[in-house]
This record gives sequence, structure tokens and C-alpha cells, in this order.
Amino acid sequence: MNALVDRLVNGELKLRDVESHVKDSNEAAVVRRTYFERKAGVETTHIGAHTVDFDASHGARTSNEIGVIQTIITSPGELLVKGNFAVGTYPIFIAKEEGMLTEGIARGIGVLNAAGGVTTRVEKDGMARDIMVTTGGIAESQVLSDWIKSREGTAFLKEEFNKHVGNHGEFISVESTYVGTDFHIRFVGTTGAANGMNKVTIASSKTVSAMIEHLKETSDMCIDLASESGNMCTDKKPSQINSINGRGVSVNAEIVISKEIIAEKFRGLTPYDIADLNTRKNLVGSNLAGSIGGNAHMANMLSGIYAATGQDMAHVVSGAQGLTYMKVDKNGDLYVTLRMPTIEVATYGGATKNESCKEVLKLMGLYGEGDKEGDTRRAFAEVVAAVCLAGELNLIAVQAQKELALSHGSLRRD
Amino acid sequence: MNALVDRLVNGELKLRDVESHVKDSNEAAVVRRTYFERKAGVETTHIGAHTVDFDASHGARTSNEIGVIQTIITSPGELLVKGNFAVGTYPIFIAKEEGMLTEGIARGIGVLNAAGGVTTRVEKDGMARDIMVTTGGIAESQVLSDWIKSREGTAFLKEEFNKHVGNHGEFISVESTYVGTDFHIRFVGTTGAANGMNKVTIASSKTVSAMIEHLKETSDMCIDLASESGNMCTDKKPSQINSINGRGVSVNAEIVISKEIIAEKFRGLTPYDIADLNTRKNLVGSNLAGSIGGNAHMANMLSGIYAATGQDMAHVVSGAQGLTYMKVDKNGDLYVTLRMPTIEVATYGGATKNESCKEVLKLMGLYGEGDKEGDTRRAFAEVVAAVCLAGELNLIAVQAQKELALSHGSLRRD
Amino acid sequence: MNALVDRLVNGELKLRDVESHVKDSNEAAVVRRTYFERKAGVETTHIGAHTVDFDASHGARTSNEIGVIQTIITSPGELLVKGNFAVGTYPIFIAKEEGMLTEGIARGIGVLNAAGGVTTRVEKDGMARDIMVTTGGIAESQVLSDWIKSREGTAFLKEEFNKHVGNHGEFISVESTYVGTDFHIRFVGTTGAANGMNKVTIASSKTVSAMIEHLKETSDMCIDLASESGNMCTDKKPSQINSINGRGVSVNAEIVISKEIIAEKFRGLTPYDIADLNTRKNLVGSNLAGSIGGNAHMANMLSGIYAATGQDMAHVVSGAQGLTYMKVDKNGDLYVTLRMPTIEVATYGGATKNESCKEVLKLMGLYGEGDKEGDTRRAFAEVVAAVCLAGELNLIAVQAQKELALSHGSLRRD
Amino acid sequence: MNALVDRLVNGELKLRDVESHVKDSNEAAVVRRTYFERKAGVETTHIGAHTVDFDASHGARTSNEIGVIQTIITSPGELLVKGNFAVGTYPIFIAKEEGMLTEGIARGIGVLNAAGGVTTRVEKDGMARDIMVTTGGIAESQVLSDWIKSREGTAFLKEEFNKHVGNHGEFISVESTYVGTDFHIRFVGTTGAANGMNKVTIASSKTVSAMIEHLKETSDMCIDLASESGNMCTDKKPSQINSINGRGVSVNAEIVISKEIIAEKFRGLTPYDIADLNTRKNLVGSNLAGSIGGNAHMANMLSGIYAATGQDMAHVVSGAQGLTYMKVDKNGDLYVTLRMPTIEVATYGGATKNESCKEVLKLMGLYGEGDKEGDTRRAFAEVVAAVCLAGELNLIAVQAQKELALSHGSLRRD
Repeated sequence: MNALVDRLVNGELKLRDVESHVKDSNEAAVVRRTYFERKAGVETTHIGAHTVDFDASHGARTSNEIGVIQTIITSPGELLVKGNFAVGTYPIFIAKEEGMLTEGIARGIGVLNAAGGVTTRVEKDGMARDIMVTTGGIAESQVLSDWIKSREGTAFLKEEFNKHVGNHGEFISVESTYVGTDFHIRFVGTTGAANGMNKVTIASSKTVSAMIEHLKETSDMCIDLASESGNMCTDKKPSQINSINGRGVSVNAEIVISKEIIAEKFRGLTPYDIADLNTRKNLVGSNLAGSIGGNAHMANMLSGIYAATGQDMAHVVSGAQGLTYMKVDKNGDLYVTLRMPTIEVATYGGATKNESCKEVLKLMGLYGEGDKEGDTRRAFAEVVAAVCLAGELNLIAVQAQKELALSHGSLRRD
Repeated sequence: MNALVDRLVNGELKLRDVESHVKDSNEAAVVRRTYFERKAGVETTHIGAHTVDFDASHGARTSNEIGVIQTIITSPGELLVKGNFAVGTYPIFIAKEEGMLTEGIARGIGVLNAAGGVTTRVEKDGMARDIMVTTGGIAESQVLSDWIKSREGTAFLKEEFNKHVGNHGEFISVESTYVGTDFHIRFVGTTGAANGMNKVTIASSKTVSAMIEHLKETSDMCIDLASESGNMCTDKKPSQINSINGRGVSVNAEIVISKEIIAEKFRGLTPYDIADLNTRKNLVGSNLAGSIGGNAHMANMLSGIYAATGQDMAHVVSGAQGLTYMKVDKNGDLYVTLRMPTIEVATYGGATKNESCKEVLKLMGLYGEGDKEGDTRRAFAEVVAAVCLAGELNLIAVQAQKELALSHGSLRRD
Repeated sequence: MNALVDRLVNGELKLRDVESHVKDSNEAAVVRRTYFERKAGVETTHIGAHTVDFDASHGARTSNEIGVIQTIITSPGELLVKGNFAVGTYPIFIAKEEGMLTEGIARGIGVLNAAGGVTTRVEKDGMARDIMVTTGGIAESQVLSDWIKSREGTAFLKEEFNKHVGNHGEFISVESTYVGTDFHIRFVGTTGAANGMNKVTIASSKTVSAMIEHLKETSDMCIDLASESGNMCTDKKPSQINSINGRGVSVNAEIVISKEIIAEKFRGLTPYDIADLNTRKNLVGSNLAGSIGGNAHMANMLSGIYAATGQDMAHVVSGAQGLTYMKVDKNGDLYVTLRMPTIEVATYGGATKNESCKEVLKLMGLYGEGDKEGDTRRAFAEVVAAVCLAGELNLIAVQAQKELALSHGSLRRD
Repeated sequence: MNALVDRLVNGELKLRDVESHVKDSNEAAVVRRTYFERKAGVETTHIGAHTVDFDASHGARTSNEIGVIQTIITSPGELLVKGNFAVGTYPIFIAKEEGMLTEGIARGIGVLNAAGGVTTRVEKDGMARDIMVTTGGIAESQVLSDWIKSREGTAFLKEEFNKHVGNHGEFISVESTYVGTDFHIRFVGTTGAANGMNKVTIASSKTVSAMIEHLKETSDMCIDLASESGNMCTDKKPSQINSINGRGVSVNAEIVISKEIIAEKFRGLTPYDIADLNTRKNLVGSNLAGSIGGNAHMANMLSGIYAATGQDMAHVVSGAQGLTYMKVDKNGDLYVTLRMPTIEVATYGGATKNESCKEVLKLMGLYGEGDKEGDTRRAFAEVVAAVCLAGELNLIAVQAQKELALSHGSLRRD
């Protein structure tokens, strides 16, 4: 072991080659960790205290393993969801160490449960990938555009996509646009309980390869692949196209909270106070800031749930584009609705295989093993939106109570 | 213990009250975990296997603790950074279980080190918070606007802010705008090694309270606090204001990579191939998608490093707004630069106190204990930008090699 | 006459009632003009010197006529266009009094003609209108969303739309989304040579009325009309939805200009100089500014041609969202392309009926009388894009020559 | 004359050289017009019927004159404005031939006057120009950034700018940012009654030239001018930077309209109906569309007034980014406010010199001859915002009355 560390120090061994000299990646991690400790002159005790098996993830989800981050999971309680896919009370888990966050969500959940639970609906569902190809100019681009829109072209692309997307996947739609010789083809498909990024990417890419070949044989078009992503997907970047077209699961959530419950749970506030601040902050303030969407802190709830359940944390970016809208309804009660067009999640595959994440999904009753239709994934997305509603409601109410700085002041030290 | 679980099941005990009946939060977590296991009919082994002390975080960073997520830390190696604050070779740690990501960054790092390391510069540094107040109308709003811009007004706000921001904090600037009676005051300040969100919020809020009182005494203005955040901060939401004005550390990163190194490290590619794809994808494609900024996958690197070092994962949202720009320089070499205006990070306080995160920061030599100036924080932000450059370069090169789908296909199963 | 002016002064007569006391609107304009002159103590000579007939426009396009603005029409020359609909050389007319603009476009046109003319393609064509209706909540919204997407729902909407859009109009597509009870239905249709705004609005509105009635009879849905526009159209406001989905005619334009022509026409410049500045300014600079699209000054050409041909000048707003992209091609020549997704124009109807505008359209050979298919309108949109290319090319070249301020300095006095 | 036309036809004479053979540009226009008529086989009568003197504009504002467009000026009446600069009742003129527009604005004006007139405030005033320079890399960019922010650098730039901006101009501020070697310097200044584009461009450009020279002499920096515009100005393109920082005159407008007036003037409507639709359409709908700002149709009013008064019609683009916000106030009345950050106008210079436009400005009492301070320009901008308020209020009310399609249907034929 020390010999291996020496060889790492001397540059005779590469980090990724340690596995060749030890039993498995768990042992290799010890070597690498020791190497970094020695270089830094620092001893560690916590990052090495893992029970998850590095060998199970090595080569699939991870490489050059060193140790683990132990992020504390907390629970703001159980939330009643009345969705298309999520029906019932779900325990909620937040892996995010931010003072007051879990307590705030808990308060929101208390209000939502008292008001009868959150209604949710899946507006759309589909993972998107934009493949960029190169044409000879706009004349050819337009011919290609027409072909893709044609009955023949669409049928060809659908058939190829379905051939390559795997058993649980399915073609939904294809759209295109171009700038000169840069031609973007945006595929949308579903892939069961998986997030879909990889399968849709592979299927889209193979479909485009087949298309290029087909068009070379049957037409004058001479098109080349330019990039497996042309950034119109859009993956892990803020973008209006995701808000307009959706990506992953597009979920809406809703609740009506009586003025009595508001008065009881948020002392001193009326439905008007909360709805008014929401308009001024999440609609007007966000407009002034040049935001995409408009919300108070969806990213907090998203990052907390995503970390607890093995989601790709980079998908917090597009998730945070949601819109929170509130108004006083005809009865004087508070109407709250969220539009979250881009909840890109998985209940199977990827980092959900991390043993601790899998356990959390199982505690929620939403681990997607054997779910070919993706219903657990859609249910999970509905729960995510419902939790976001809890967090949004609470923060707006807290800010309407002008207590934010105060509550921060008494509890946090950063 | 079982009795407590029973009482949770029966609704006689609340999740947050378990602490009253046990020694500490570590024990309380066992009770809560057991409760959720029983409800779900699921047994867990990994989420309970923690060494971090829940009692140390309870009430400060966490509440209702349940267990931990063990996210695997990997290392793509060590990166040479030539910055204002980060000078030298830094070990890089990524806590994100995404196949190929660490290997890809590692390849990027290899190229960057071969090319002499990444130059970084801190363009600006300052945490922002927008306090919204209510005026009597635009006439009063304009008087307030003029007062804030006046020598007297600015001096008052600066003095108050500095009074409240703590020893390591400092006022930087204040700006305002309004929509009718909604008046937004955006403060910018620094707070040493801390992320600054809480201290700047508290200082801004107290400053505005003092201002309101002062103006009531010395003028006709009658202003009320509306919200501790008016969304022009902008915190944890995508927004153009953060790209234009910056928030947290605004870092630029840069490198020139010779055509020889490109040819050697990215087989088959020239600097032109890479720069051309970057323009078409990150500039043109992002423009078509309606993105803020333009990059390939900064959110991947950000989420990986942030998770490993105790950053607020919701700050990946604004971090992902960076811009990646490449061109072939006069010598035919590849010039790459990143503009990352919104790197909101801490090297002390908040979740950096999580024992495993602290260890990672120490391995990097950047734990901010005792750093009153915030130089470790700025250095860390420079390292973050440099790692993003490694990841951006590699992915663009991979996509230029048209290998993305292939490499995904052979390695991932989601 | 003087008596009428007196009565206007005394408030006994309203501006819009003058017609009741005179022969026609031409005479009424004299009365109203005299009234304003007297109030201001100013005499006018030019605004009354009109030959267009106010009586012909009164009640249709205008009311309360006063006089005319005489905007000077200039011509930068004739431009060769090789489009789907515009084929041949078109005289170009610019009604915009901005020093150097016409000369600049003229220089651009000279280069484009020398390079063989501009290729243009119509990517899409369709005017959009978003009708907003109110539902009972997201459960009903989702049912409506599913119905609209259903074969039955789409067929119903298509049939109704076609019933109401007039002889030259046609349904293209319908899309929807919702935020709680606010449900947006975005119709796209064409209407021959007319701009389409009015006819598509009427057809969409009537279609939604029929839909509401139909759903009340055949389902539990109880939906109300909320607004004839829900702002997702998007008409006369900057918006990403128009860039992504297009509105009006979506045109692409393209040309390759040999390095020899560049050297001859833009002294001192190479294709690289021009393409490089375009990338830095129109792609990178626009990204930093938070623009939609990226161009140098499309709004100049658009406003000049639109004013000369009776277009709705408010449509310059969305037209200005285009993207200008340039690169050096494999032969070392300059490749230039424009993507203009939102050219909302008419060659018949609306202000094209203004006698002077009609004359200009006739001089261009593009007045749309009798054009049921809208081919003159699409041809006109192609010419517009080609002129924009001339203007974009010239300004980028001028700025690359670092002469802008100089040329302004010597010619303008504002 | 015919001989000259023949020579144009034969290509022996260029359009711009006709002046060499005739008395002046008025005669030259006849020749050019005849040429185009002959080519098109079309006779014109209206475009030649001008009284404005082409010779007065030739070489300054126009070249290659052909004739005039006679755009009909209409008046929706007189509007009471209570601003900083505009105080009193102003006659309003709209040069835009759009059915119902003038009548709609007239209805809005009637309501506003009945409610006591529109309050307006100038939040900021300053024309901006972004000069782009090239540095040697981010190390040099950062040194330049620091120098510009330094007391010395700012003083140098201010002094140079003031030296070059002319008698009525003044430096306001300078800001910078960079992407690698692309360094953007955004100057803001005022220039009296003129729009300011040209003078600020010239002053900024000369200031940067002086700066480059100064830095070459006094430091190691070696900087080159890249472009007189780097698109962060932002001129004539939609952009968030203009909404956030403002450009031209940033005006706010406001009014409270009693519920009684609403009931009387907009039959069937309450303040709630109007405010509610405004929120749903201009805030929520615009958010969904990815708009910058949020309004109903500001571009209509802007284009109508701008055309009547000789403004640069391309500035409608940025003007249309305004925000319209409404709410029911504590008394149950309707509160309406507009934020219009980018009203780029002139009351002197440029196309305001067109004789017909000058007459309209004189009728308004706002022609800026002799106005060194720019107060007429700011007053004009306030009037513009007040008129926009009239138009916004009316359209929202009309749409709340669900009459839009109907009213279009009965009046328009396009």
C-alpha cells in the first residue's frame, strides 16, 4: 500500500491505474486517499468511512474513487399528493445542510396537508436531445427541414429512433431549425424509469447516422454529423427553450388554502399579503432581474431532494426555471400554483444505484426497479413539484412576515 | 427507542421533538430513520452508516436528521492554476456519480497541465442582496432613488451596512430601481471566507431598517419594508442581472494550447475543429436556445466540486450561466477563455463545516479557517473556473471527435 | 371652418366629431390641424401638404386625421435575390432619415451583387395568436391540454379555424400550455398576402368560442374566455418564443463572398477580419448584453423598408431578434448567413393601402393585390432578409475598419 | 432629364451621381424616381408630392432620395402630464395607420385626464456606447479593468470624454467587463436635446483612442481598438442590459383611477378585472413567452409617436421592453404604473429636422432648438411614457371586456 502511494508520489503510477495493483476500487480508494493526504499533510477520517461499494460503481458511474461525502439527510415530514401518478402521502427527504430550510419546508408541508394536499398534473413528459449536423448551405438546409417535416421523413426518424432507444423507450417528436449550414435536430423521447439522457442521446445519434446514410443513398443531400449536442437540448444550462417546450417531466402543482388556515398557520397574514408579495417578488422582481421563470427558491428544494435520491445535481439548473403564481380566489382563499416545465429525474439507473440513494427512494416507495413505463419517475416528479410548492409557500409567507433576516440571524452562523 | 418510534407512528410525537427524549441528534436520527423504515416496510443499512456528528450540525445547518447520503468523491487529478489567489497545483475532487465525467475532466486537466496551466483572474467579488421596500408612489420612489445616489445617502447606507456586516465584511456598492411603489435596493458586500449570503442579508436588512427610520425622521418619506428579497439579488434563480453585474466571485480563466498538444492529446483534431464547434454550439446553439451565457456543461463540474466541498448546491444554477469562448490565435494555437460571473462559494461556514467536506477543502489546502480577507474563497473560485475550463475543453473536443454517443454507449447504463 | 375651430377650442366639439360638419376627412383634418396650430401658436405648412386621401383611410386605418409626415424615401440600389419566392433583382427603398444608412446598405448591396446575389429560403410561414382562457384548476387544464392534443380536439380546432379565417387563410397548427387556471392556446395560420394579425385573431377567437361551447355540451369542462391575447403570440414585444417557434415569415439568407471581392470592396480587410468581429460582437457581445438573437443593426434596415412599404412599424421589435453568423469557409472566402425568424409583413391590406406605400410596393413589383397564396408576401420577406444581410455585412466591415466614429463624425450633425 | 434616366438605365450613371448633373437633390429625386418607374413599368403620383426639401437633408440625413412616404398623422387628443419636465396638457400625435389604435389611445387619454393626469418621473438619463478593445489576455484585461475602476482611470476617461462630447454633452459613468481578450468599455453620457447616439459614439471612440495612447506611454499595456460597438450598448437590439441599466431616458409613469371612473369609462369592469388581466397577461404570459419586460403593446404607441416626431424608428425595439404593472389599491381603486427604462429620443437633430416632424414637435411645444440641457427631450420622454400608459390601460380594459376580436372584426379589413 505505502509502496503504491510512493509510486503515485513519484509519478510512476497514475491515479487511474491503482486498480491494477489492488483487489478492487475500495482498496484503490485507500491508496489514492492516502496519496492526497500525504501531499496535503492532512489526515482524514470521515471521507474514508463509507459503506457504499466503490467496486460496484467503478467504470459505470465513477472512476478514481477517493472516499465519500456524507451529506446529512433530513426530513420535513410527509406530504399528501393528489397527482396523476403520485397518489397518497410521501415521506420527504432533503440532503442539504442549510439552516432553516428543512424547518421551512416542514412548515409549508404542515399547511399543505391541513389544506387537503397538493394536486399535481404531468403536462408533458419527454427527454430531449439536439443533434447538430452540417449541410452544404441554406438551400440544402431547407430541403432537409422539409424532409424532416414530411410524412416520410418523420416516419423514418421515428422508426430509427425506436429501433435504438431500448425496450422501455419511445419516440415522441422531432423538430428542427437551422442557421446556415448548422442544422439542429431536436429529438424527444421517453425511456421508462431512467432519466433518459443517455438512451435518448444514443438513439438520437444513431437515428441521425441512419438518416445521413439514407439521404446520401436516396437524395442529393450530403450531410455530416457536427456534434452529438448542439445546445438546443438544452442540458444543464438555463434556457428558454426548456421553459417553452419542456424537458423531462413538465409538472404543474396546485392548492387552495383557506383564509382560516392562512391566519392560523402564518400568524398575522392574509391570503392577500402572500399573493401580493408573490406577484411583486416572483413576477415583477424576476422580470426586472431578467430571470427565466420566476420563483423564490425552487433550487433549494430541488437540490435537497435531488441529492437525497441520486439525481444528476446539474439538473437543478433547468429545474430552477419554474414559475410560482398565487392569487386570492373568489372565496378570499389563497390559490397557489407552480409550473415546473423541466424536472429531469430518474427512479432507476445512474446515481440512483448509489446504495444510500436507493434506500431513500425505497423509503419513498418510488424506487423504479422493474418500472418499464416510467410511472415511478413521473410520480417522483409530481412529489418534487409538491415539495417545491411547500417551500415556495413558506418562504413567501416568511418574507411577507418580514422575518427572514431575523430568523437567519438567530439560527445561522456562516 | 421502539417506544419513541411507536409514538411517531401514532402521531403522538413530532419528528422534530424526538431530541427531547434522547441523548442527541445522532440518537434521534436512529429513531426517525426507524420510523420511516417501518412505515415503508424497508430496511436500510447505508444511510445510517455515518461518522459525521449530527449533533454538531443540529439547529445550525440541519434539523430532523435521518442519516447520510454517501456520495462518492473521485479525483480527476491535480491542476496547475496561475491566478491572483490560486497559485500552484491543486488536487481536484468531484462528488458526482456520472460515468465518464471524472475521466473527461482528467483528460482536460492533462491537456491544461501540458500547456502550462490555467491563468485565472478575479474580475469582481461581492455578494448581493436586494431588499424591497414600499413607497407611496413614483414621486416618492424618485426622491428615494435620488437620495440613495446622493453623497449623503450612499454614505449613510455604507456606514450602516459596515456596522452590521460583521468583522470580516465590507460594503462594496448599492444600486436601486423601482416599479411604481415597489422599490428595490441591491446591496453588494464581501464577508471574508464565508459565502456571504446570510451576513449580507442581515446587514442589508438592518441597513434598510435604519434607513427607513432615518428618512422618517429627516424627511417626508414614509417607506416600509416589503421583503428581505425582491428577487433582483438574484439568489438561486437563472438571471441576466447576475451575468451583467456578477454575484459572488466573477472569475475569468484562460489558456493557450499549442496545435502540437491538441494534435497529440485529441487525436485527429486541430485547434480550428475545436474552436469552430465551440462557436457553433456554445455561442450559436445557446443563442437559439435562449440561454443565459453559453457553455457545454459547466454545471457538471460545478455540481461535482460544490458537492465535494460543502457549497450550496442551489448555487450551481447561477454558476451555470458562464460563457466559454475559443478561437484559433495568430500562431494557429487554440485560445480558450471562460467568463464565469457568478461563482458563489465559501471556504468557511455553512456546509463546509460538514466534517467530510472540510476534509476535502483541507486536502485542497483551501479550508478558510482564520481567513478574514476571503483569499481562500477567491482562490477556490479560481480553481473552480480552471476545472470548468478542463471540462469544457474536453467535452467540446469529444463532441468534435463525434464520439459522445459512442463513449456513452460503451460505458453507461442508466 | 373657423367656427368649427372655435368650437373645438371651447370644448363644444370633439376631435372625432368634426367629420359630421364637413365634407370629408380631408376637410376635417384642416379643421383639426388649425385647432392645434392655434393652441400652440404655431403655423404649419408641410404636414398639411398631402395627396393621400384621408377619407379613404378614415374609419379603416385612421381616425382624427391631422396631416402627414413626409418621410424621405431613399434607395440604396437594386439587389439580386435568389430565393424560393423572390427571384431576380429588386429595387430597394428605405424611408429612414439616418445619415450613412442608405450609403452603407448601398455598399453592402454592391458587394452582394458582385458576389452573385443573396440566396434566401423561407423556413416557416405562419401568423400566431395566443388566446387565453380560464379553467377551474390544473385538473381541468390538463384535461383540456389532452383534448387539444387529441386527434379529435385538433380536428375540431382546425375545422373551426378554417371556417372563420377567410378565403385566403388556413390553419397551420395549435399548441397550448397553462399556469394553474390560465390556459394559453396558441394558433398559427396563414392569410394570403395580408400580414394576418387581424384575420388570425378573429379566427382564433371565434374558434375558442366554438370550442368553449362544444366542451360545455360534450364534457364536464367549464371554460371561459379570459383574453384575446395572452402575450404568448408574441405580438410587438421582444420574446424568445418568436425566435424559437417563429412568427410571420421565418427567413434565412446566405451568401459566400470571395476573398478577392472582400479585398477589393472593403479595403484592408480579409474574410477573417470580418467574420472574427462578427463573432466577437454579434455572438459574444450580444450574449453579454442578454440579447435575444444577435445582430449589428437589423432594426435599421427593417425600419427603413417597413416605413417605405406600409408595414406595421411595431413589428420591427420582433424582426430585430435575428441572428447574423459569419465564418471563413474552406476556400478562405467569407460565408455569411442570417436567421430571421420573425418577419411579420404584408403586401396587401393594412397600411400598404396608403397610396405612397402602395406605389413603393408596386415599384418593387410586390404589391399583393390578387395574391391569394401570399407568395408576394413571402417574396417580400425574402427581400427584407437580403437587405438586412447587406446592411449587416457593411456595418461589420465598417467597424472592422474602425471607421465608424470617423465616418459619423464627418457626416452627421445631430 | 430623360437623358439622365437613360444613362441610369444603361448603367452609365450611378444613383448617387445624379446630383452632379442637376440643380439639387429635389431634381435628382425626380430623375431617380423616373428611372425606377420606367424599370417597373409603374407610374407614381404620391411619392413625388413632397414639400420637404431633399437638398436640406442630402448628405446629412439622406442620400439617393426618391420621394416621400406620406404617413397619416392622427391625434388621440390632449393628455395631462405631471412630470419633472413635462408639466401640463400636451397634444398627442400618432403617425401610424392602424385601425382603432388612435381611438383606443383616445379612450385611454380620456380616462387618464378624468383621473387627474399621469404622474411621470425620470429615473435616469444617459445614452450609452460600448467600445470594444483587444487586450493581450485576461491578465492584461484585469489590469485594464482595475485601472478603469481606479480614481485615476475614471478621471482620465471622464476628462477625455468631456473634451470630445461637445458643448451640451457630459460624461456620466463608465463600466467595463471582458471575455478573454475582448474588453468592453460602456460609456454613458448626455448630449442636450439630441438623441446622443452620434455624439456619445464619437466621444467614446476618441476617449478610447486617447486611453490606448496614454496606456502605451505610461504602462506595459498594449491595447488595440476592436470595434466602435461591442453590442453591449445596446443599440437597436432587444437586450436585458438596457432594462437593467437603462439607456436614453428611463421614465416611470403612474396613475390612480377611481373605481367610479373605471365603472363609467369601461362599462362592466372593476379595477380588479383590469389589474387581474394585466397580471395574467403582461406578467405571467410575458414570462411564459420569454419576453424582456412585459406589456400589452407599448410598441404601438412608441412607433406612432416616434414616426410623428422624427425619432429613429429602430429605437422602438428597445423602447418596447417596458413593464406595465397594475393592482387594486387599498381604496379599491386601480393603480397603474409603467417602467420604461429605454426611451431613446431627440427633440433636436437627426430626423427631427425633417420639416414635417419639426412641425409636430412645435405643435407639442417640445422642439428642442436652443435647449442645451435636454429638458425638452426629457419632457418629451415623459409624454411618451404617459401616452404608453393610455394605450396600455385601454387595451387591457378592452381585452378584459373580451371585445378585441369583435372590435377588430367590425372595423378592420387587412
